[in-house]
Amino acid sequence: MGLSVGVAGATGAVGEELLRLLSERRRLPVGSLRAFASAGSAGRRLPFAGGEVLVEDLGRADFGGLDLVFFSAGAARSREFAPAAVAAGAVVVDNSSAFRMDPAVPLVIPEVNRHALAAHRGIVANPNCTTAVALMAVAPLHRAVGLRSLRVASYQAASGAGARAMAELLTETGRVLAGERAASHVFPWPLPFNAIPHIGAFLPDAYTEEERKMREESRRILEAPGLRVSATCVRVPVLRSHCVAVWAETEGPLVAREARALLEQAEGVKVLDDPERLAYPMPVSATREDRVLVGRIRDGDPPGHEVLLFAAGDQLLKGAALNAVQIAETLAVDGLL
Amino acid sequence: MGLSVGVAGATGAVGEELLRLLSERRRLPVGSLRAFASAGSAGRRLPFAGGEVLVEDLGRADFGGLDLVFFSAGAARSREFAPAAVAAGAVVVDNSSAFRMDPAVPLVIPEVNRHALAAHRGIVANPNCTTAVALMAVAPLHRAVGLRSLRVASYQAASGAGARAMAELLTETGRVLAGERAASHVFPWPLPFNAIPHIGAFLPDAYTEEERKMREESRRILEAPGLRVSATCVRVPVLRSHCVAVWAETEGPLVAREARALLEQAEGVKVLDDPERLAYPMPVSATREDRVLVGRIRDGDPPGHEVLLFAAGDQLLKGAALNAVQIAETLAVDGLL
Repeated sequence: MGLSVGVAGATGAVGEELLRLLSERRRLPVGSLRAFASAGSAGRRLPFAGGEVLVEDLGRADFGGLDLVFFSAGAARSREFAPAAVAAGAVVVDNSSAFRMDPAVPLVIPEVNRHALAAHRGIVANPNCTTAVALMAVAPLHRAVGLRSLRVASYQAASGAGARAMAELLTETGRVLAGERAASHVFPWPLPFNAIPHIGAFLPDAYTEEERKMREESRRILEAPGLRVSATCVRVPVLRSHCVAVWAETEGPLVAREARALLEQAEGVKVLDDPERLAYPMPVSATREDRVLVGRIRDGDPPGHEVLLFAAGDQLLKGAALNAVQIAETLAVDGLL
Repeated sequence: MGLSVGVAGATGAVGEELLRLLSERRRLPVGSLRAFASAGSAGRRLPFAGGEVLVEDLGRADFGGLDLVFFSAGAARSREFAPAAVAAGAVVVDNSSAFRMDPAVPLVIPEVNRHALAAHRGIVANPNCTTAVALMAVAPLHRAVGLRSLRVASYQAASGAGARAMAELLTETGRVLAGERAASHVFPWPLPFNAIPHIGAFLPDAYTEEERKMREESRRILEAPGLRVSATCVRVPVLRSHCVAVWAETEGPLVAREARALLEQAEGVKVLDDPERLAYPMPVSATREDRVLVGRIRDGDPPGHEVLLFAAGDQLLKGAALNAVQIAETLAVDGLL
C-alpha cells in the first residue's frame, strides 16, 4: 500500500522534476499519482513511472483520498487551493512563497531544521530556491560556531522564472547570434549576454522580494531572528542552476580550513574546492546534481570570524522539487503524514 | 603640433578601443600615431582617424620620437618593452598588471587620485578593469565618510580575457544552441550558460589573482592601506561589460539616501536607480557608455554604516582604454607629459 499523491502545477518546470523524482525515488512509496494544472493543460497526459498520468483541472479539483499534495503552481494558486487539500485530509508541501512566513507553517530544509516538521498543521513550506542553496552551504557553519551575518550575491538561472523563461533565454540567445535584437516577455529586460539585478518586485526599502526572502527565510530556517542578512539577487544567462557568493561572519572563531572540514561532513553538500584541478562549483556542474556544490572556501579580511564561499545548486532540484520530496520523505519516515 | 603617440597591442580588443578613442577625443591632441603588435600582425593596416595605420612589429620597435605610448599587450610585453619606450623619451600608460604594485609607478583613476600622477617617472599604470568599475562607485563614499571595508562579487564579461574570448563565447554559445557540447580554449571551462568563479591564477590563500588585485589596487588607489577588501570574481556569459555587487562599510555614518546624493554628483558616474522605471545598471546598458552606471543603492543590515550597490562599466572603456586615455589627457593638461 503506497501513498496517494497529488502534484499541482504538474506541467511546469518544477512539476516535471517532481514527477520524475516521485517515480524514481524509493523512500516515498507512491501508490497512486494525480496531476493537476490549469484548465488549459487539463486533458494532457504526462509521463510517470513508465506509464502516463492524465492532467486534471486544478480549478475543479476534488482532493478527496489524497494523502499528500505538492503545490508548485504559484503563490496565488497555493493560497486558493491548498486549504481545500488540507481540509480533504492531505498534507500539503507547498513550493510557493504563500505560507513561508506563516508562523503556523514550518519552513523546512530537512538537513537543516527537520525537527520543525513536527509542528505542522497540514501545510509545510518549501523555501525559496536561492535561500535553499545558500543555507545548505552555511548551516553547517551556523551549527558549529553561530552565524552573525550573511552577505549574499546571487547568480540566478532562468529556470527560477519557470519553463517559459528557460525557453525565452534559448530563443532570444539564438536571435542575438543571428544579429537580431533580443526581446523579453518573461524577464524585465532581455537576458542573453546580460545580467539583470531585479528578481521579484521592488519593496519600499529598495530591496527586491527575492532579496527580502533571503533575509526572512534564512532567519526562520536557521532559527536566528537576529541574523543580519543582506543580498543582491541577479539573474544571469544560465539555464537551471543558481550560484551564490557568500560572506559568512561568525560569532565564534572560524577559519577556512575548519569551515571546509565542517562542509565535508555535511549531508547534502559536496565540497568541490581543488583549484589545482579546476574544481569549484559552477552551474553546469550542479545541474541534475542532488547535492549543493560548495567551494572557493577562503578566509575573510581579516581572517578569524569570516569565511567566503561560492555555492551552486540545481534550482529545480534542491532549490525546489528535490527539497519538497525530501520534506515528504521525512514526514513519512517521522510518522507525520 | 600634436603628440606622437604609440599603441602597443593595437590589434587586441583594448587596442581597437584605444585607436577609436584617440581618433575621436579632442582633449588629447594626437599629431601622429604608430601601432605595434606581435610579429604575426605586423604589416596589417588598422583604421585610424579616417585613414589607416600600418602595424609594426613590437619586438623590433624603435620608440624614438614618441611622446606617449599606450601598452596593452599583456604584462610580459610591458615588462620587456615599456622601459625601452621610457628610455627613448616617451611616457608610458600601461594597461597591464606589470607595474601596478610598483611604488615608483602611480596607479591612477583620474576621477579618484589624479594628484598621484605628479610623481610619475615615465610609467603610469592603468588599474585592473573590475577594480576600476568598483572604485568609481565607492570612491565618492570614501571621500565623504571613509571606507572601512569592501566586499565585492563580480559578474565579469568575456572581453576581460580579450577578443579571442569574446569570439569563443559567441561561437560556443551557437554550438550549445545547435545541441552540441561547448568547448573551451581561452576559458578554463566552457562559458555559455555557465558561471566560472576563476579569473587569473589561484594563489596560496585560495584567492585568485583577480581577487588579489581588487584588494591591493583598491588600497593603493584609495590611499587606504588598512582597508579591508575581499572579492569573489566570477566570469559570466556576457560580452563586454563588467558588473559588481558591492557591500561598502563606512567609518562615518552613511545611509543609502546620502550615498545616492554623493554618487549623483560624482564625475564619471551615472546613477541609474529608479526601480519603478526598471532603471538599474546592466551590462548591456553599460556597453559603449563612458560612465560607470551605479544603482540598487540600499542600506546594509543594519542600516547606518553600510551601503549596498550594483555597478556596471564597459570593461573595454572605463575598465581599460578610456581610463588610459583619460590618464594621458590629464598628464597633458597638468603639464606632466
